[in-house]
Amino acid sequence: MRLSPLQYEPLLRAALDEDLGRAGDVTTLATIPPQARATAVIAARESGVIAGLPLAAGAFRLVDPAISVTPLVADGAHVSPGDVIARIDGPAPGMLSAERVALNFLGRLSGVASLTARYAEKIAHTKARVCDTRKTTPLLRTLEKYAVRCGGGANHRFGLDDAVLIKDNHIAVAGGVAKALRAAKAYVGHLVKIEIEVDTLYQLREALQEGADAVLLDNMKPAQLAEAVALVKGRMICEASGGVTLETIATIAETGVDLISVGALTHSARVLDLGLDIEVA
Amino acid sequence: MRLSPLQYEPLLRAALDEDLGRAGDVTTLATIPPQARATAVIAARESGVIAGLPLAAGAFRLVDPAISVTPLVADGAHVSPGDVIARIDGPAPGMLSAERVALNFLGRLSGVASLTARYAEKIAHTKARVCDTRKTTPLLRTLEKYAVRCGGGANHRFGLDDAVLIKDNHIAVAGGVAKALRAAKAYVGHLVKIEIEVDTLYQLREALQEGADAVLLDNMKPAQLAEAVALVKGRMICEASGGVTLETIATIAETGVDLISVGALTHSARVLDLGLDIEVA
Amino acid sequence: MRLSPLQYEPLLRAALDEDLGRAGDVTTLATIPPQARATAVIAARESGVIAGLPLAAGAFRLVDPAISVTPLVADGAHVSPGDVIARIDGPAPGMLSAERVALNFLGRLSGVASLTARYAEKIAHTKARVCDTRKTTPLLRTLEKYAVRCGGGANHRFGLDDAVLIKDNHIAVAGGVAKALRAAKAYVGHLVKIEIEVDTLYQLREALQEGADAVLLDNMKPAQLAEAVALVKGRMICEASGGVTLETIATIAETGVDLISVGALTHSARVLDLGLDIEVA
Amino acid sequence: MRLSPLQYEPLLRAALDEDLGRAGDVTTLATIPPQARATAVIAARESGVIAGLPLAAGAFRLVDPAISVTPLVADGAHVSPGDVIARIDGPAPGMLSAERVALNFLGRLSGVASLTARYAEKIAHTKARVCDTRKTTPLLRTLEKYAVRCGGGANHRFGLDDAVLIKDNHIAVAGGVAKALRAAKAYVGHLVKIEIEVDTLYQLREALQEGADAVLLDNMKPAQLAEAVALVKGRMICEASGGVTLETIATIAETGVDLISVGALTHSARVLDLGLDIEVA
Amino acid sequence: MRLSPLQYEPLLRAALDEDLGRAGDVTTLATIPPQARATAVIAARESGVIAGLPLAAGAFRLVDPAISVTPLVADGAHVSPGDVIARIDGPAPGMLSAERVALNFLGRLSGVASLTARYAEKIAHTKARVCDTRKTTPLLRTLEKYAVRCGGGANHRFGLDDAVLIKDNHIAVAGGVAKALRAAKAYVGHLVKIEIEVDTLYQLREALQEGADAVLLDNMKPAQLAEAVALVKGRMICEASGGVTLETIATIAETGVDLISVGALTHSARVLDLGLDIEVA
Amino acid sequence: MRLSPLQYEPLLRAALDEDLGRAGDVTTLATIPPQARATAVIAARESGVIAGLPLAAGAFRLVDPAISVTPLVADGAHVSPGDVIARIDGPAPGMLSAERVALNFLGRLSGVASLTARYAEKIAHTKARVCDTRKTTPLLRTLEKYAVRCGGGANHRFGLDDAVLIKDNHIAVAGGVAKALRAAKAYVGHLVKIEIEVDTLYQLREALQEGADAVLLDNMKPAQLAEAVALVKGRMICEASGGVTLETIATIAETGVDLISVGALTHSARVLDLGLDIEVA
Repeated sequence: MRLSPLQYEPLLRAALDEDLGRAGDVTTLATIPPQARATAVIAARESGVIAGLPLAAGAFRLVDPAISVTPLVADGAHVSPGDVIARIDGPAPGMLSAERVALNFLGRLSGVASLTARYAEKIAHTKARVCDTRKTTPLLRTLEKYAVRCGGGANHRFGLDDAVLIKDNHIAVAGGVAKALRAAKAYVGHLVKIEIEVDTLYQLREALQEGADAVLLDNMKPAQLAEAVALVKGRMICEASGGVTLETIATIAETGVDLISVGALTHSARVLDLGLDIEVA
Repeated sequence: MRLSPLQYEPLLRAALDEDLGRAGDVTTLATIPPQARATAVIAARESGVIAGLPLAAGAFRLVDPAISVTPLVADGAHVSPGDVIARIDGPAPGMLSAERVALNFLGRLSGVASLTARYAEKIAHTKARVCDTRKTTPLLRTLEKYAVRCGGGANHRFGLDDAVLIKDNHIAVAGGVAKALRAAKAYVGHLVKIEIEVDTLYQLREALQEGADAVLLDNMKPAQLAEAVALVKGRMICEASGGVTLETIATIAETGVDLISVGALTHSARVLDLGLDIEVA
Repeated sequence: MRLSPLQYEPLLRAALDEDLGRAGDVTTLATIPPQARATAVIAARESGVIAGLPLAAGAFRLVDPAISVTPLVADGAHVSPGDVIARIDGPAPGMLSAERVALNFLGRLSGVASLTARYAEKIAHTKARVCDTRKTTPLLRTLEKYAVRCGGGANHRFGLDDAVLIKDNHIAVAGGVAKALRAAKAYVGHLVKIEIEVDTLYQLREALQEGADAVLLDNMKPAQLAEAVALVKGRMICEASGGVTLETIATIAETGVDLISVGALTHSARVLDLGLDIEVA
Repeated sequence: MRLSPLQYEPLLRAALDEDLGRAGDVTTLATIPPQARATAVIAARESGVIAGLPLAAGAFRLVDPAISVTPLVADGAHVSPGDVIARIDGPAPGMLSAERVALNFLGRLSGVASLTARYAEKIAHTKARVCDTRKTTPLLRTLEKYAVRCGGGANHRFGLDDAVLIKDNHIAVAGGVAKALRAAKAYVGHLVKIEIEVDTLYQLREALQEGADAVLLDNMKPAQLAEAVALVKGRMICEASGGVTLETIATIAETGVDLISVGALTHSARVLDLGLDIEVA
Repeated sequence: MRLSPLQYEPLLRAALDEDLGRAGDVTTLATIPPQARATAVIAARESGVIAGLPLAAGAFRLVDPAISVTPLVADGAHVSPGDVIARIDGPAPGMLSAERVALNFLGRLSGVASLTARYAEKIAHTKARVCDTRKTTPLLRTLEKYAVRCGGGANHRFGLDDAVLIKDNHIAVAGGVAKALRAAKAYVGHLVKIEIEVDTLYQLREALQEGADAVLLDNMKPAQLAEAVALVKGRMICEASGGVTLETIATIAETGVDLISVGALTHSARVLDLGLDIEVA
Repeated sequence: MRLSPLQYEPLLRAALDEDLGRAGDVTTLATIPPQARATAVIAARESGVIAGLPLAAGAFRLVDPAISVTPLVADGAHVSPGDVIARIDGPAPGMLSAERVALNFLGRLSGVASLTARYAEKIAHTKARVCDTRKTTPLLRTLEKYAVRCGGGANHRFGLDDAVLIKDNHIAVAGGVAKALRAAKAYVGHLVKIEIEVDTLYQLREALQEGADAVLLDNMKPAQLAEAVALVKGRMICEASGGVTLETIATIAETGVDLISVGALTHSARVLDLGLDIEVA
């Protein structure tokens, strides 16, 4: 995955507008001469995985096109405390004004990537992959799903429209697993996959009989998950969800499921601690 | 603080657009009859402080004005696991389609409020207050600052434009604390406050001599903070920042500072675990 | 499929803005008293399939909420010349001002639905379905894909992002069918389907060996299509494309393919001839 | 007429956003190395008139500024099957991602220009000109009116606001031709022209008596049109409309009318068949 | 002319957003209880003509739909000091928050209407009318042209696109008056009027010979204007411009010109002094 | 203060869109050859202070990036009739098309700056400064506040959110000066200043007792103002407002107040008369 400026520039403009407000960066306007120049580095203050460098660079460039940003690592890189991530050079006023927006994007996305990487490492010995959910920050879904990939995770649906995921409530209204699956197959185009959530092995058997692309095994204990995987025999992709933590994910992965979805990757990641040290010329 | 729909409806529309995409909620369109009705409750699955109920209600209303949402608590309420936060009644399709967006806002803002409340409790025996920073989620600053207030915290600047905050780099370029303060006073209007960051008591004395509305005592040890507070003698608002955790905040507050700013309130809050249980009619 | 006002209201507003310009509907402002009322009917002037009634109603409602629009048929209905499609009642000025925008949407979408229905009828005796492409009118893709459904057609991808479709150029750069398929499988999430275009049976065999969700049999003669279908044996969805007309589609469908994609459904549909007859009170 | 990027870039951005969606061009991202380069040509697959080259070029440039597009003909050029219209050179990923949006605009506008040219040719031996209507694609009116000009047609009003066109309903409410014309003259500024629709010679005489800039002779037979032209004697511009086809337009033009308006130019033009052949380096 | 909410609501939303900023109306939020109610009147503090009541009402309604605004006069009404223009009733917080935006629109537009009325009165004994120019406030052109009408003035072009106005520079490049007029006639559609600026009677004769819809007699002395009017003999609309003041306009009008355009109507109108007196319940 | 293109480019685009409409600058398109070049100067036709040069330059650049604009003075410069403000060179069509938008911004902002300068000169012998209000043109507040600074004035609040200003109605509802001030202090963050309006010395004493950052002495006579200043003794910033004219401001300033706010600076400034003289190559 690569982000296009077509995707993120409108977000950068909105974020800069949010921070600059009506009167602009009054502190910099008051205290920094227009012609002052500076160099800066963005450095890691803790270990983690970087995501969002094009956004950080874009924030500085939008505030002042004369600022140059040179990344020293690429998105997806693992960094340690003290590692320099990018060098910045150019007019000081724009650098000071853009700093916070640049870091807010970079730190947040790197936080998602870093948490994803921690989950991914725990299950690296299995064939399972950790994936995200739709529990993303409103308006930042594409960015956060990109960050999950930078951290070694996989992406689930990007929205309500690009795949069918039949949950318990849909099943209840539709009148059961088989009926819901049949309704979905009748509705969607030939390039739309269908996944169904099951809470019991009984429902799983019904899903297998009717057929689906994937099954979401919700809140099952490891033993039950293993039994489910054995039942499925590769005929559907098996996704586990519910109660997944850094402590439990390895055991879940070892049941043979293909995917483990973790809302926390995007809804509860801490920012990665990054610092921007400016050296004024 | 109260949020106005003028402020949050554009965000809700953008978030719904992000989730519904081009083809809409294909699962619901395929499996739920248009005329199906449902009732639902939003309930807490862990203890915390609620923030964002108007946004949750707005998400359902925008998807289908026939859905009614009845809050049972108000923003700022402390809830325990199992507490019902709101009841929802109306057409099932819209309820299912709006659910994730509603919860993404409500869970995230409640997460910020809940974390703020935990910090605030630690210092309730002092006169100090915990406050936020500009380390907020891009595009959601107003919402997150509102959530900090729901959790009992105070708000720092809303952007670069509504107050002056002179940091180390500004001081370096301006040629010292006194020069920077003088430049700021010469620049700003009479209703703009000026705060200056100091790293040493020497700088603090310079700031006191020149005068400012507030001082940011950055990364000082408690003993040094206490000394600073004694020096200031109430002539400036004293804000402490740096290295603040739930473990250290009480000690910091006990030094007599007025405010303790904590970036983590907004950049590292976990979502509050809330569930929406739909009961289809 | 049902359209949501969240999806089409912004388009209606933009279209009304385009038509009303800066000075508004000067003819109506000059000649129609504000208090004049009227009733009107929208009637078919040729046979076809209706699509877009919610948009037509929305155009009148946005110009003047006091105008009521009562549809007499639903989207997807087959109509004959003279059939009344909707009744409109209310203030005359808004009715006259909104008329063209309402009809531009309704006529255009009904044109797409009607052309789709003509293709669909030709292959009703087979299991094949006619489907659309991405050759849609810029900015109106969701609406036109909805109209295709109203006409009895199926939807292909909604964009570049919701499914993989590997075409000849991708194959050439990737180094062949197998390599391209492997790259795609490695890249996409578990709910993204993969289709590959093949021009020869040789390529088809390579695709079968590597596995894919669907195959696009491009510009093949009927005999070759039949051979392809026999080779595939149901292991992939078979889509035919290229040179499809109302004359050739039945023969193509009889080869056993599952889908026949026709760009003309959206890029070359004539508007359906509809008239709005206003009876001023 | 020349289009300005100020006018079409927002449309290109919206169209690219519509096609790229949240996850971007997943096929290209998966199968094309970022550094791959390609050359391509856009060629005509049927005869027609080209319109929209600045938009096609703009689509590629917006996706990747490193792509260069060199037009070999200008908008308005007549092309034959096989004629190369433009050469494209640069990074392959952006070229593949922008292809469909570029062709959707170029093919659609060239279709309008080509159909216009066919009508224009039929009446080239007369002084009459073919012109468009407000039956344009919502949101694309300026582009389609530009395409009509590229095809040799003339433009009618661009919207409800830039000229008065009094139709039968306005006449009915206003209380007759003379009253409607007087109301219009009293209302509009001195640079706004007034045209009135008449169905009979009786109404035409009333219009002549009162005076107007132009008259729309609606659904009149050729003999009646000739009589009308003779009555008008050049005192008003004569526009014929209704029942105009490629078969009937010459006869209509030969009655001496100045303009013949044809909704089909924009509401029922087929796309011009154009191909983009990419040669990957 | 009547303004439609489709035209002015986006402007109202933008103006409220500009005033409320990120934190909202902090004074009202701090000091006014949410349930407080109030009544208010908008009254004139000087004589003038009212324009913009729908915008004032819309501002209150958008901030709080529970606020009702009852206009006591209509746009275009002449008011004297003390006249009550509208009554307002409802929740106090929204009334206080919306007040400034409502008055900024109403005062500004009423200022334009009032200045226009003063010019119009000076020439009421002649057939000439005063009209506006394109020297309007950026983004508010439709509103200000509406206000000119409320004051009894006429509207010139609404933009560069709805009529041709050939000025001295166009004439110079085109190679003279006749060539410029011929180029314009060849270019524009049949419903676009053409006006040409002339500085001398020589140029005027050239324009008469070639023919145009209107002539702009720029910076001519009254005697020269009278001579020009005599030359034109009603064959073109005569517009005078340049050096028009409240002192000179009557003399200019008495030369027999049809229109006198005055940039000051929109670029130099003072706000009309209006007061909003709130009586808190 | 310096304006950033991030702040004004969206306004320029909207203003150009407003002027160019759907069909563009038809006069220039008809009469000026695309390859024609021109040079031009913007010159002052009356004395005043310039503000808005970056916007004027931006308007030309957005219409055609090949146009170069070279300012000969900077914003804030005092100019005399005949002074050349900027030279413009490049393609003639874009120069003619952008002229009015460029001048509309430049003339209007220079008008605000010039009026401000006239007020500022009157009080140059005192320590008082003239400042603006929120009575600005909707959507142009940042630009107009910038122009006030160019003219030597100071800025009051930029909106309802960046400072508290307690007015008479707030005091009435809150239950008095002291209660209102206490409510405000309890509500706002530590970087938000509080000003309170008082009409009497009694209220002033109450405000002094409770404490505030600033006091607005509304509609007081000079003698009363002097008494108020004496009472305050520098403990609050003293702002005078009401009945301020070019004739009265010196007397008001001599009472010792710090600030005098004048709504007329932005709500009643005449445009500064500037001319753009194009010399076509």
